[in-house]
Order: sequence, then C-alpha cells, then structure tokens
Amino acid sequence: MCPIKLIGFDLDDCLFDSTGLSERARIKGIDAMFKMGLKMDRKRAIRILSEIVKEYGSNSSKHYNHFLKRLNQIEENIEFISYNDRYKYIAAAVMAYHEEKVNSIKLYNDVEKILIKLKEFSIKTAIITDGIPIKQYEKILRLKIDKLIDLVVISDEIGIKKPNPELFNYCLKKFEVKGQETIYVGDRIDKDIIPANLNNIYSVYLHRGGKYDDYKAELEIQENYKPNYEISNLNDIFKIIDEINKTNP
Amino acid sequence: MCPIKLIGFDLDDCLFDSTGLSERARIKGIDAMFKMGLKMDRKRAIRILSEIVKEYGSNSSKHYNHFLKRLNQIEENIEFISYNDRYKYIAAAVMAYHEEKVNSIKLYNDVEKILIKLKEFSIKTAIITDGIPIKQYEKILRLKIDKLIDLVVISDEIGIKKPNPELFNYCLKKFEVKGQETIYVGDRIDKDIIPANLNNIYSVYLHRGGKYDDYKAELEIQENYKPNYEISNLNDIFKIIDEINKTNP
Repeated sequence: MCPIKLIGFDLDDCLFDSTGLSERARIKGIDAMFKMGLKMDRKRAIRILSEIVKEYGSNSSKHYNHFLKRLNQIEENIEFISYNDRYKYIAAAVMAYHEEKVNSIKLYNDVEKILIKLKEFSIKTAIITDGIPIKQYEKILRLKIDKLIDLVVISDEIGIKKPNPELFNYCLKKFEVKGQETIYVGDRIDKDIIPANLNNIYSVYLHRGGKYDDYKAELEIQENYKPNYEISNLNDIFKIIDEINKTNP
Repeated sequence: MCPIKLIGFDLDDCLFDSTGLSERARIKGIDAMFKMGLKMDRKRAIRILSEIVKEYGSNSSKHYNHFLKRLNQIEENIEFISYNDRYKYIAAAVMAYHEEKVNSIKLYNDVEKILIKLKEFSIKTAIITDGIPIKQYEKILRLKIDKLIDLVVISDEIGIKKPNPELFNYCLKKFEVKGQETIYVGDRIDKDIIPANLNNIYSVYLHRGGKYDDYKAELEIQENYKPNYEISNLNDIFKIIDEINKTNP
C-alpha cells in the first residue's frame, strides 16, 4: 500500500508560469504606452521597467507610475508626455497588463493530468502558498483547478506565513496525516524545501526555470536545506511515489 | 458667431450609465457566489449587498467580504460556506464583478454623435470629474472617447476637488475662455451645477435616471443652485447653444 496520502504544491512558478506571465504582462503594458505615443527604444523601456520591478518589488501596483517618473528624470526627449497625459498612459498600461494576466494564465502542461491521476490514486492534494488570498484564489479559479485540489492553504488566510513550518503542519493536521505520508513540491529552498524538511515531509524541488531556480548558485546548501528529490517535470512525481513505496514496504 | 467655445461634461452617469453598470456588476458577483454553491434567496442576497454598498460607500473594495461576514451574523443556515472557502467565494464574486465592469461599459447612445458634431463645430470639449485618475482614464479609454475629448480634468490629478469652483476655473484658464463662453453638463446640483454657476458657466442638468437624479425631492432649490437648463437627452445641447446664440448675437 502506498504510504503517500497527500501531496502539497506551491502555486506560483510550480503549477503555472507566474514569473513569465508577469513579465509578459508588464511588456504588454509598455507596448500599450508605445501605442499611445511613447517614443523611445523599446528594449531600453523594458530594461528600465525591470529595474523598477526589482527595486519596488513585483507586487507594487505603481510600476508604471515609477516608470514615467523615472523617464522624466533620466530621459531628455520625453517632454511629449505632458503632465496631463501621464495618467492616460498609466491607465493604458495597467489595462493591457491586467488583460494579459487574466487572459493568458495557464497551467504548465504537466499539471492537470497529474492532478487527475492523483485523484484516481486517492492521494489527497493541497496548495500551500503565500500571497493575497483573493488574488491567489483568483489564479486557482482561472486555472480551473479548484475542483482538483482538496485543500487550499493561503498563509494570509490563517496567519502563518512561509517559511514557518507550522504552516505545513497545519496542512498535515487538516488531513490527519504524518510528514512521512506526505510529499511537498516547491521551487524555493527557503520557503518550500526547508519547512517541508522540518516537518519530515518528502521535499521535492521542481525546476521550472523561474526566478528562484538558480538556488545552487545562490546558496551554500547545508544538509537539511537539501531537497529529498529534484525534478523538472511533474510526471516524475510518480517515480518518487514508487521509490518511497519500495523503501517503505 | 457662436459665443460657446467650450462644453464640459461630468463623466459618471452623464456620458455612461455608471450607476447601472455598477449595480449590474455587483449582481454578477452575487450570481457567481450562487454558482459556487451559495444557497439563499437571490433577491434577499441582492438587497443585503445593496445595504452594504450604502453603508460602506460604493468605492469600497470589500463589499463581498462584508457580505459574507454579514451572512454569518444574520443568516442561520449559512454554515456551508466554511471559513476556508470564503476567499474562494469572494474571489469568484470579484472576478465576475470586474468582468462585467470591463466588458459592459458603454456610452449612452447620444454621446458619440454629439462629441463628433461638437468637433465639427470647432467647439472644444472637456471632461471634469472626481475619482481615482487611473480608474477614470480607464473608463475614458474603454469608452473610446479619448480622441474626441480635448481635455480631461480629474480632481485628484490637480489637487482641487468638486465642488470647489476653482476646478472649473482651472478648465476655463486652460482653454483661455470665459464662463459665458462655456456650458457644463452634469447630474449633480452640489458638485456640478453650483460650481458651474459660480463661474458664470451655463449649467445644464442632465437627467439620466441615475442615483442623484431626484434632486428636487431632496433639496429646497435656492436660486443660485438652479441649473440654467435641464435636459434628458444630450442632443438638446444644440438647442441650448442656439438659444444662447440668440440672446448673445
């Protein structure tokens, strides 16, 4: 009998390409400004915006405001965006950004099949994620996986945030399972792998090429920071389940 | 020669049915909750939400949060929305609300023709409105009238808010015209008609049936609170222009 009763997943950059979607959406915003009359080198505009995203954080709602302010500071030929017009430019950018975010969100190709197969195997599934609850649920509903996931745990909803291992323990208690009966799949050492390890959950590092995917270059990995498994395709989760089954007959 | 050089318009409930759009969008949100599993009388749900909108103001972003909280207080058979599910319900409602707002916004039938005709007559046009600048520009862009309006004045953009008559004077100065050369069309005595009158602008009260359209029942109208004209179809603006022309040959 399979000892694995529960598989938890991180949401962003694990079940869908969150980093890529945001980048594409931001560029759509820039392009909307060009359509409105902005005149400068497109690559330079994209580079300036990506600097702003790094400086102000990816969750800021003011990226395009900062972008226009910065153009005023560093570009000399930018006076054609009058003080009166700047909100029109920002509105056009924000509209294009949201349109892309709403219309282009989609699961990684390997996700839906896996979730259906896990349901067939009677293995429970959970999403454990940080973020604004309504925004995270909006993603889940747009991705149409709410019926395929047994429990969604959003840290801001319950007052315990990653990397606090209690967040993962909360999930174990909800399903009345032990860490050794659970696998957790994530893309960050600090927020996913370590708290899973601390709960004796089998930790799986999923390489999706997202913004945290270069952990080995960034961190000197200590023993208990290491994921139990590393995969780059979710299908490999079944190999992992098999392997755990063999070692726990 | 026509002495009227400029016509200013309020935006919400003057150029498009803002009140109706918001009401329809809010009901779409309620219906999304029903689709998700809410079980109660639909009319009662809509009535509760409209109470919340009155109490917390139409610009609150928490209507559906308050709605679910209130159900917990006043409804006895509502336990089926678990604590864990409430953000899913709110997210579904918010998504449906925004979808309706984005997809169903449209000009009143009489607006586009009028704006084109005014352009042919070389009469300048302006929108003077309160509200969050990016949100107001988003409406203007979605309504596709940005090319037909010569100037947009949003109070939060320039730091002067309705009913301060300086907001209207700012607009006169921008176009270098006098009040007597200007008509302003709005749907509120307090925020549109009075400041227009104080600037000697010809004030036109436009009856659209929106939420402020019952002013006569609400206010004892003093002489300088009275609009110079009252119309219920924007086409009548040309009659008003003619009349002003006759009295100012």
